Amino acid sequence: MAFQFEILKKDAFSKARLGRIETDHGSFSTPAFLPVGTQGTVKSLTPEELVEVGVEVILGNTYHLYLRPGCETIRRLGGLHSFIHWERPILTDSGGYQVFSLAKLRKISEEGVTFQSHIDGSLHFLTPEKVVEIQGILGSDIAMVLDECIPYPSPYEYAKASTLLTTQWAKRSLERRRETNPALFAIVQGGTYQDLREESVQALVKMDFQGYAIGGVSVGEPKSLMLNVLEWTTPFLPENAPRYLMGVGTPEDILNAVMLGIDLFDCVLPTRNARNGMLFTSIGKISIKQAQYAEDERPVDETCACYTCRHYSRAYLRHLYLANEILSSRLNTIHNIYYYMNFIGGIQEAIQEGRLLDFQKTHCSRPSGLEPEVSAHRLTTWG
Amino acid sequence: MAFQFEILKKDAFSKARLGRIETDHGSFSTPAFLPVGTQGTVKSLTPEELVEVGVEVILGNTYHLYLRPGCETIRRLGGLHSFIHWERPILTDSGGYQVFSLAKLRKISEEGVTFQSHIDGSLHFLTPEKVVEIQGILGSDIAMVLDECIPYPSPYEYAKASTLLTTQWAKRSLERRRETNPALFAIVQGGTYQDLREESVQALVKMDFQGYAIGGVSVGEPKSLMLNVLEWTTPFLPENAPRYLMGVGTPEDILNAVMLGIDLFDCVLPTRNARNGMLFTSIGKISIKQAQYAEDERPVDETCACYTCRHYSRAYLRHLYLANEILSSRLNTIHNIYYYMNFIGGIQEAIQEGRLLDFQKTHCSRPSGLEPEVSAHRLTTWG
Repeated sequence: MAFQFEILKKDAFSKARLGRIETDHGSFSTPAFLPVGTQGTVKSLTPEELVEVGVEVILGNTYHLYLRPGCETIRRLGGLHSFIHWERPILTDSGGYQVFSLAKLRKISEEGVTFQSHIDGSLHFLTPEKVVEIQGILGSDIAMVLDECIPYPSPYEYAKASTLLTTQWAKRSLERRRETNPALFAIVQGGTYQDLREESVQALVKMDFQGYAIGGVSVGEPKSLMLNVLEWTTPFLPENAPRYLMGVGTPEDILNAVMLGIDLFDCVLPTRNARNGMLFTSIGKISIKQAQYAEDERPVDETCACYTCRHYSRAYLRHLYLANEILSSRLNTIHNIYYYMNFIGGIQEAIQEGRLLDFQKTHCSRPSGLEPEVSAHRLTTWG
Repeated sequence: MAFQFEILKKDAFSKARLGRIETDHGSFSTPAFLPVGTQGTVKSLTPEELVEVGVEVILGNTYHLYLRPGCETIRRLGGLHSFIHWERPILTDSGGYQVFSLAKLRKISEEGVTFQSHIDGSLHFLTPEKVVEIQGILGSDIAMVLDECIPYPSPYEYAKASTLLTTQWAKRSLERRRETNPALFAIVQGGTYQDLREESVQALVKMDFQGYAIGGVSVGEPKSLMLNVLEWTTPFLPENAPRYLMGVGTPEDILNAVMLGIDLFDCVLPTRNARNGMLFTSIGKISIKQAQYAEDERPVDETCACYTCRHYSRAYLRHLYLANEILSSRLNTIHNIYYYMNFIGGIQEAIQEGRLLDFQKTHCSRPSGLEPEVSAHRLTTWG
């Protein structure tokens, strides 16, 4: 397993870094945004379309793939890359978040977690070791350790015990990792408590992980608390390992986190919003179903060069949405992912050229920067 | 409006013809199969994907487009071709079939038909003249006259009166046609009565239509009756005008009808079946959801060169179907339309090379030729 992270440039005025991650399935630039391929497909798109909009790496949900079609099936079919016809890198999550948000009758113990499938009610028992193995079987390039995602709000004592468990699980995950396994990232927890976050990150960085994720954010807490968590955590993370902020977020969230030193992001926001007719544009979000677009000949975004904006009017996209046509989800998803890729590409370029502060000024003075205070995408978009 | 039909070759052993139809939006070969673009999109596909699988001409449903987004809206947006980003020919139906199958509170008179929209209950009144105008506004290349589609079974007296009305409406449609209007096709009705079919076709061919359709088939009648209708009708149709069998059908239906002299076909069967997981293959239809495909690494059809068969296993397609993923409909639709295009291309080649009988022998001795007796696709697939 080849995994390397190289920092190509550091921003002089923030903690932002431009980097490159190397895997067995090729390399990708950081900061990176990973579209979510929940059930073995980034909803509505083909791999070729993802490549066309500039996607270099995607996320797969271990929980979903483990339950259906099953990891042994995927192994027999040549691994996840081959199964879904995606040749570039894949990061898989641990399934922890879905076990805690989707599964029925969840029961957690020191050993692991027992849960009932949300699909057929079948009973499953996952341990940190098994989760590492599953991701190895899938053929993931970057695997995540099993963690417990602490809800917001949670009492201190609960958060403390849970954080300790996640740390113990991380240690066990590391022990199970084999030479041939994917790169393994730990997940910092600790809820919204500074001392727990610090304990968590300090314990984890003592172990030998290839990367570090910050979990348990974007679960309904105020946005200011998310920034606090980043400020408490990132100073303790090693410079030379990639940092991943899970489940985040809006373009503004991403930019803020990049400036605090984060390298990786995933979120269902662009894809889920697309299917709901919410489109990102350079002058703010629009809801394509609105009557004002009924005869609007303009593309979604006049500055956008995506397939959707090159060929279709807002009026047509509105029509497709109202008529409940599959093509609506496709064209909207292409546009929104292109928007995100273009945004993250703009961040990369700005770091390279030493003008990230200018980039921030331009992009956060626009209405698109005015996002709701609570980042609710985690709550509404999984599954 | 440029409309021309040229017969390039006649089959020596059947009434099949190889031809070419010229329109303002380019030409296409006949026999032709038209995928159905109900609401301004062939469900789940982009125009580029249609071109890639060899589609030269599509059908648009006047009823649907008239109700939503409305033909005046489409006119203001530059016409249907521009609105939906399809530059090749479009044939529009008259909406008659949908008025009689989808609309609520339909009331027919000599003047026209009053109905309630199935979308919002709004009241509409369509006349033969208005239907010609609407299709002109849409910018259709080939328009159909308003007809009454006679249900099966229907009593003789009802069928007789209805057929007469359709003929009168055809005459009025022709009078409304302008120089700039689309080519106009009449529709032969007459139910399952030989004398009414003959009266209908003889009355219509006396008028100056650019093509003739056979309607009122594929409405639940036994397949043998559909062949009877063709045998009663086609001998009276002029050689030098294209003949269109509406709403048909299975590959076997199409081949049989081609050999009786039919040039054009449309049907939702390949697209609707695709969304239901029914896939056409060279050795018969398969239902992709079946457990036997759970770990089947083979493509849907090992002899098929479509995008889906080049990149995905039956196991992956089964997974997408069971997981209710949008990509399932897309990949299945690509495959099924490719299958139809390949089939119709095979017919064209066989006529060209004088081996249509051989083609029939090969294709109708296979299980794929074993279609159910009642062609139910019209009943289950509209809307």
